[in-house]
Amino acid sequence: MRLLQRLAQGYLRLNRIEAFSDGVFAIVVTLLVLELKVPELRDADSARELSQRLREHLPSFLSWLISFLIVCRFWLNHHYVLGLARHANYVLAWLNSFFLLFQSFIPFPTALMGKYPMNPLAVSLFGVVMAINTVLFMMLRAYVFGYLLDPELADDPGPLLKIRSWVGPLSFLVGAAAAWLSPPAAFLVYVITPLFFITLSGHTVSSHTVNPEPSADL
Amino acid sequence: MRLLQRLAQGYLRLNRIEAFSDGVFAIVVTLLVLELKVPELRDADSARELSQRLREHLPSFLSWLISFLIVCRFWLNHHYVLGLARHANYVLAWLNSFFLLFQSFIPFPTALMGKYPMNPLAVSLFGVVMAINTVLFMMLRAYVFGYLLDPELADDPGPLLKIRSWVGPLSFLVGAAAAWLSPPAAFLVYVITPLFFITLSGHTVSSHTVNPEPSADL
Amino acid sequence: MRLLQRLAQGYLRLNRIEAFSDGVFAIVVTLLVLELKVPELRDADSARELSQRLREHLPSFLSWLISFLIVCRFWLNHHYVLGLARHANYVLAWLNSFFLLFQSFIPFPTALMGKYPMNPLAVSLFGVVMAINTVLFMMLRAYVFGYLLDPELADDPGPLLKIRSWVGPLSFLVGAAAAWLSPPAAFLVYVITPLFFITLSGHTVSSHTVNPEPSADL
Amino acid sequence: MRLLQRLAQGYLRLNRIEAFSDGVFAIVVTLLVLELKVPELRDADSARELSQRLREHLPSFLSWLISFLIVCRFWLNHHYVLGLARHANYVLAWLNSFFLLFQSFIPFPTALMGKYPMNPLAVSLFGVVMAINTVLFMMLRAYVFGYLLDPELADDPGPLLKIRSWVGPLSFLVGAAAAWLSPPAAFLVYVITPLFFITLSGHTVSSHTVNPEPSADL
Repeated sequence: MRLLQRLAQGYLRLNRIEAFSDGVFAIVVTLLVLELKVPELRDADSARELSQRLREHLPSFLSWLISFLIVCRFWLNHHYVLGLARHANYVLAWLNSFFLLFQSFIPFPTALMGKYPMNPLAVSLFGVVMAINTVLFMMLRAYVFGYLLDPELADDPGPLLKIRSWVGPLSFLVGAAAAWLSPPAAFLVYVITPLFFITLSGHTVSSHTVNPEPSADL
Repeated sequence: MRLLQRLAQGYLRLNRIEAFSDGVFAIVVTLLVLELKVPELRDADSARELSQRLREHLPSFLSWLISFLIVCRFWLNHHYVLGLARHANYVLAWLNSFFLLFQSFIPFPTALMGKYPMNPLAVSLFGVVMAINTVLFMMLRAYVFGYLLDPELADDPGPLLKIRSWVGPLSFLVGAAAAWLSPPAAFLVYVITPLFFITLSGHTVSSHTVNPEPSADL
Repeated sequence: MRLLQRLAQGYLRLNRIEAFSDGVFAIVVTLLVLELKVPELRDADSARELSQRLREHLPSFLSWLISFLIVCRFWLNHHYVLGLARHANYVLAWLNSFFLLFQSFIPFPTALMGKYPMNPLAVSLFGVVMAINTVLFMMLRAYVFGYLLDPELADDPGPLLKIRSWVGPLSFLVGAAAAWLSPPAAFLVYVITPLFFITLSGHTVSSHTVNPEPSADL
Repeated sequence: MRLLQRLAQGYLRLNRIEAFSDGVFAIVVTLLVLELKVPELRDADSARELSQRLREHLPSFLSWLISFLIVCRFWLNHHYVLGLARHANYVLAWLNSFFLLFQSFIPFPTALMGKYPMNPLAVSLFGVVMAINTVLFMMLRAYVFGYLLDPELADDPGPLLKIRSWVGPLSFLVGAAAAWLSPPAAFLVYVITPLFFITLSGHTVSSHTVNPEPSADL
């Protein structure tokens, strides 16, 4: 606790934390495509052979798609939460760094799951990493809501939102467990989890509408 | 439709959406060069052998050049459209994310077409991905023009512009179809399409001149 | 000295130096994960074999973790020091470029140490590169404190801070020396050094609290 | 000329052009390190073998260092020139895109020269690419000085500066020619050229001191 107090001293600028985070998010989503390898063909001009090779790599494309949606969702939540903070400090900067550490790790389990889609450990690891990411983000959010909240921008999230926010990590852990019984079932859980996020997001945020000056947007 | 209404609640900051998008665009254009592989030479000091190897990789260089111009064009249009919005919301953020999903995918079909320039499927796929990108961008633009337009910055694009904006995706689909008859013809279509964009761009935008404060530019 | 005077002429904008630096920091931490290679399995579906392969790559994961924490720490210090400057000039821009040169080099010794964790030279090189980075950062900081300090934002760091800031490079050099006796001991030193930074950071900065306008943060 | 007039219509925001460019510059300098490959050792724990392998890769390290300095120099000049513009338009955006096209190409000739340091074509190509980059930058600068100059920020560069700015491309072309006689001589020219830039930069700019508001820097 004395450590937290020490770190909380000293203001930092939110805009550079956001710029650094935006850079990491943007690079993570774009590096994901590097895991999609151009296949080696015996007959370079054969559309049939290329089509077959690409279909064999379908799990890689699916992993890429799932990770992209999840990282975009994290980016959006990150954007929302930091927009509610009135300033930054060292605790926020380090909580943010640990969150980004696991964000930047995402291309590895994504590639692993794409290459070994029937390997229980590979598929399970993906869910565990995503659950850790979600918990780290929830810690970041809890700190902002508890210590840095701009009183004009937000009101209390209420108990329903607090309970609902555990749906994300639990859903990823269910997928991680399901991988040991049936890897395709785990894929299904991983696909559904971000879709669930997307449809609920507007609702979740509706009670905290941020009203920035339009001029500040540009 | 109820989903759209839900997502439209809650303002977001345009500048972070632009920063995230700029990051993705910048990384995509720069990652393209990673697909240009340094050739393996038998005689490391032979200029003749290197020259021959580089000439064999000409389709890779051409693919890189075409993709770079197209992504720059998308960046420019994105910049223009988001500059007309008065604020951001969750629908815009997700439309933007799906657009960036396919932008970040571009290095893959670029590498594929560069490696297999005579394979109809590889060359065709490039055109299909570009057409999807264009359609996704048109959806983003339609949403901004329909729901988020800053009334001081723009007037109605007019029916001519609306018709003309379909030239892009149709031209890419023509290229994708041509690839099955003659891959070089498809290359030609892909080269011409962004050039056509470049020369028309000033004209297209002339009726929506944005007048930012010079001080805000710096 | 006349060179320094020449370079000091001409103001530059701090925000672009920060944007460029944030980009480099963000890419360095995210590229680190590319050094984590997906292992080749004989039995693609075997969780046991994957688990064994991943355990063999434990030094790579550890190198990645250490480098990530160190780069985040550099980013945080960079953020703090540039926040105290009242403007930028060419000396600052070049000192910053040389610092970024060695920051962007970090993925190489990280990969080397991860692949050859028992090779004294590989493990030692990591410490030397980190010590050079720290010294280059101290030069950047000394220049800002000596020539560019915004008088409202900071007071003299005091002799204790000056002495304490040498702990970083010395600790990395101790690790680099220890690598020749026992590589695991060097790993331990490298792990401890950034942890030491994290806990002390709040204290170090407490006497220079920066008070940006909350509106400027957003 | 009518094309130029068309493109000049429609204002764009300088800050997004700068953000996109900063992203490309930052990624280019950081991707350069990916060309430094971790060597394969027969004896993983042998410091002697690793030392020998690293010395064999000395040309790669030198290529990386030269390219890093040159790109930093381009970034600095880019920063300076765009800081003098009062607004952006489509001509500037496209001139900037073509300049970034060749900036993002730099990792390829850098890797080629690093791998084949005694191959005249590889070493010569590096100089040609750098000369093209310099000429493209001079076009960008000429357009800003001719059409977009903020009258409060700058006065005429004078004939001496105009002559002197040709030193860069000519020096790179001299290196490219020298490569066919002696590759090491070309390396020397490439090393000297950016150093020459660094020492002269302050002097070159001294007559155009930009005076931004300190508050705008933060």
